[in-house]
Amino acid sequence: MAASRTDIPGIVITGASGRMGQMLIKTIADHPRAHLVGAVEREGHDWVGQDVGLAMGGSEIGITVTDDAPAAFAKAQAVIDFTSPEATIAFAGMAAEAGVVHVIGTTGMSDSQIAQLEPASRQSVQMRAGNMSLGVNLLVQLTKKVAAALDEDFDIEVIEAHHHHKVDAPSGTALMLGEAAAEGRGVTLSDVSDSGRDGITGARKRGDIGFSAIRGGDIVGEHDVLFAGQGERIVLRHLATDRAIFARGAIKAALWGQGKEPGQYDMLDVLGL
Amino acid sequence: MAASRTDIPGIVITGASGRMGQMLIKTIADHPRAHLVGAVEREGHDWVGQDVGLAMGGSEIGITVTDDAPAAFAKAQAVIDFTSPEATIAFAGMAAEAGVVHVIGTTGMSDSQIAQLEPASRQSVQMRAGNMSLGVNLLVQLTKKVAAALDEDFDIEVIEAHHHHKVDAPSGTALMLGEAAAEGRGVTLSDVSDSGRDGITGARKRGDIGFSAIRGGDIVGEHDVLFAGQGERIVLRHLATDRAIFARGAIKAALWGQGKEPGQYDMLDVLGL
Amino acid sequence: MAASRTDIPGIVITGASGRMGQMLIKTIADHPRAHLVGAVEREGHDWVGQDVGLAMGGSEIGITVTDDAPAAFAKAQAVIDFTSPEATIAFAGMAAEAGVVHVIGTTGMSDSQIAQLEPASRQSVQMRAGNMSLGVNLLVQLTKKVAAALDEDFDIEVIEAHHHHKVDAPSGTALMLGEAAAEGRGVTLSDVSDSGRDGITGARKRGDIGFSAIRGGDIVGEHDVLFAGQGERIVLRHLATDRAIFARGAIKAALWGQGKEPGQYDMLDVLGL
Amino acid sequence: MAASRTDIPGIVITGASGRMGQMLIKTIADHPRAHLVGAVEREGHDWVGQDVGLAMGGSEIGITVTDDAPAAFAKAQAVIDFTSPEATIAFAGMAAEAGVVHVIGTTGMSDSQIAQLEPASRQSVQMRAGNMSLGVNLLVQLTKKVAAALDEDFDIEVIEAHHHHKVDAPSGTALMLGEAAAEGRGVTLSDVSDSGRDGITGARKRGDIGFSAIRGGDIVGEHDVLFAGQGERIVLRHLATDRAIFARGAIKAALWGQGKEPGQYDMLDVLGL
Repeated sequence: MAASRTDIPGIVITGASGRMGQMLIKTIADHPRAHLVGAVEREGHDWVGQDVGLAMGGSEIGITVTDDAPAAFAKAQAVIDFTSPEATIAFAGMAAEAGVVHVIGTTGMSDSQIAQLEPASRQSVQMRAGNMSLGVNLLVQLTKKVAAALDEDFDIEVIEAHHHHKVDAPSGTALMLGEAAAEGRGVTLSDVSDSGRDGITGARKRGDIGFSAIRGGDIVGEHDVLFAGQGERIVLRHLATDRAIFARGAIKAALWGQGKEPGQYDMLDVLGL
Repeated sequence: MAASRTDIPGIVITGASGRMGQMLIKTIADHPRAHLVGAVEREGHDWVGQDVGLAMGGSEIGITVTDDAPAAFAKAQAVIDFTSPEATIAFAGMAAEAGVVHVIGTTGMSDSQIAQLEPASRQSVQMRAGNMSLGVNLLVQLTKKVAAALDEDFDIEVIEAHHHHKVDAPSGTALMLGEAAAEGRGVTLSDVSDSGRDGITGARKRGDIGFSAIRGGDIVGEHDVLFAGQGERIVLRHLATDRAIFARGAIKAALWGQGKEPGQYDMLDVLGL
Repeated sequence: MAASRTDIPGIVITGASGRMGQMLIKTIADHPRAHLVGAVEREGHDWVGQDVGLAMGGSEIGITVTDDAPAAFAKAQAVIDFTSPEATIAFAGMAAEAGVVHVIGTTGMSDSQIAQLEPASRQSVQMRAGNMSLGVNLLVQLTKKVAAALDEDFDIEVIEAHHHHKVDAPSGTALMLGEAAAEGRGVTLSDVSDSGRDGITGARKRGDIGFSAIRGGDIVGEHDVLFAGQGERIVLRHLATDRAIFARGAIKAALWGQGKEPGQYDMLDVLGL
Repeated sequence: MAASRTDIPGIVITGASGRMGQMLIKTIADHPRAHLVGAVEREGHDWVGQDVGLAMGGSEIGITVTDDAPAAFAKAQAVIDFTSPEATIAFAGMAAEAGVVHVIGTTGMSDSQIAQLEPASRQSVQMRAGNMSLGVNLLVQLTKKVAAALDEDFDIEVIEAHHHHKVDAPSGTALMLGEAAAEGRGVTLSDVSDSGRDGITGARKRGDIGFSAIRGGDIVGEHDVLFAGQGERIVLRHLATDRAIFARGAIKAALWGQGKEPGQYDMLDVLGL
């Protein structure tokens, strides 16, 4: 870490060769308030020992990929981690040791795995989120509030659009939005969910939360939450046009965590909501 | 028909007490280039003999509802007819006798019933359409053209939204749009239709035409045809916000038909497409 | 007030012959949880003494228009008042006397006129709002919150669409939304407002709040607040499709006010925000 | 040109080091029905003599940048040319000599410069367009047709959104769409154009064509043409989400031109409209 940049937090990326790892490294390179101080891969990975810029097919950037995570963490103020549940549990302990902010974007963690993260959070700031986009997290919050403010005279529909490669419907984010709407209304989503309308459906049931999934082209991800009443409608919309927003959200979280009390946080804390 | 208005076509409404009949009468009342000269109901209907304005719950307008259709037609330049298939076949003959334009919005006609309309069209202008909205008819045409111009690199999706009372999905108009897209592409809709996506669907199949149905509030009717390619999208959208557009389309057709050669026409002729 | 309906609040409408007065009377007629108990007009108005249903050109409804407001208020639980500032100040005192909820939609009140309402609010529930639509009030709140949560990396634009008769741009509601965004961000709208872009404008100034006004057809009123960042966007949208929403909002306020402590409230209280 | 690929047209890119030149080279690399056979730069440019893949900062691709355009053209079936007016006039003659399709995306050509292209088009296929996006060209056509089909009861508004760096409003494409609408209606755009509404504007003038310009974030380019009538609206929308669409359009034109008669063509010919 250059002496001239001590005010700019240094970040380590774990899983450096992964899709999110590489996007994080590129995004940090262009970021005015963060810089890269380490890139970690697992022991035996063929990137270990190489310059991470060259390994990514670009030009040299002066950071050698290492499998010694504790040594890398010791030089950093934050670790951004989109890896596997097992690796993340191990990294949480090392982050606590080093006293660095641990930003966790790893998915697929079971409840018992999540519970194993807690001890480390007594010594370090731990920020974990299923979706690092500021906008999506904000939309989830707004959806809950609006669903709580409006009664069942407003029909709720979640409409999402994604590229033609997507294999499931509705999207995970659409379901998060549906959960938020149900929570705002004090109901259980599975009791009111109506997805895949087709044929003679009968009239819409009051209180239902509907889902529609549009698929086409290279749409990155668009979500609408519609509240349709008599004579008026509210729509809360999020459009993602670049996957880099997930990397930017993680970096924002890493910066936000500097100087915070140890504990477990999520993107809503980062957003101040 | 007042002498001072001989240049403004006089219109007779059949099925005057019906929902469309009443809307047509109200719409003609506000129309600068049409006026009402007759209101027809079936023999024995309790409106027969009453002033149609009073019968509708408003003020007197000087037109008495009659069950003598030929006499009413004889005083008119056009008849607008949203009734039943049987009634419409009878009215077609009377319209031919009277030499008036016959605008037919009646739905649910079988192929053999439609065939029975043909003889009358040798003597009179007959305009028949499943949907009298100018905009919807235009959208159908545009959809066919765009589907023909673009190849399967563009995924086609039809998205519609309607009020929460609607019992079927997708809407009839959405299916018309899907048919138009399929025709433009030279395929059969039933071979490529994909409606009601839900669960693990797998990636979207190239060439498919997808349908989504949104239901909520009092939405009159909205239809989007999306052509989603790589890096660009085209959307053709129609919004209906007032059911009176169907009445206005029918009146436009009645005016358009004045002075045309006898024959069978549809809304695309009226639109000049 | 019929004995069988004592649980349903009785409402008096002032300015019964006005556009909003008539819409309120029609809307209450269809409302399951409110009923009309009085209709007030000023002394000398030719509706006074007539059945209000007949005066409106419909059928009799059993409520005679009166110019004796205190007598009418004495039989009610709430008064809904879209009149003039002077009349509203007088009605506030009478509402306090009668102990009924006073819902005020009157516009164009000066600060000193507004101050004159305060004494009455010590004895009765007073609910006043510039726009009675639930949705618009909710959108204003959401706009402030989102503007506070996101920094200037997100450009804010307010886009509104209205019918072709509208003579001013941007709409009053668009300006309310712009004010809310500015307040959320801690800036003054007049310092950052950018309306009517045309020609060589130069690049957008960071921190600006832009306005666009679309005019066409019979659009009742549509407002979008766009927060456009890098790779993502949030849109908060309100669509009004029927002016009756303003009447429905006022009735909701009248019902909400039942049993509340005397004081001054606005639609955000009604919405629980 | 490998013997095994003789059925796939070989393309030369002029102005290889430019922004569009590089995007074209990358796009051809991923294209299933085209391959790169030459890259041309002006004499003295430091890319001349280098492998074009390496010069672009990537890996070697086996094509050396040359300043000998005629030699490069002789090995090709098409030339794609986004350079300067002067260079394009020279390349047109060389393309005619070589009998290759000449796709011209060069902008800023004067009428007299355009006239100088004509002689070459007697011997070769010349395809020139101000905007190579299929979608935008299609939208222009549709706009003209819809404007011709609908009368002035439908108000026309062109709404566009672009990133915050854009310095002019409305966009060039919005003006193209406005011109198309005016042409469809048989009027002159400058007589009916209404851009930058702000303040007390008065009611919208019948027949006007309005423009709104939204600016924010990194929006690549979105254009809506709204036709707003009474009770219904039609919207024609184009969204560009990736600047590569201009490169793909040019390649499509190059492929389309194979085997066509010599002459001057535009994107509407390519689209078959």
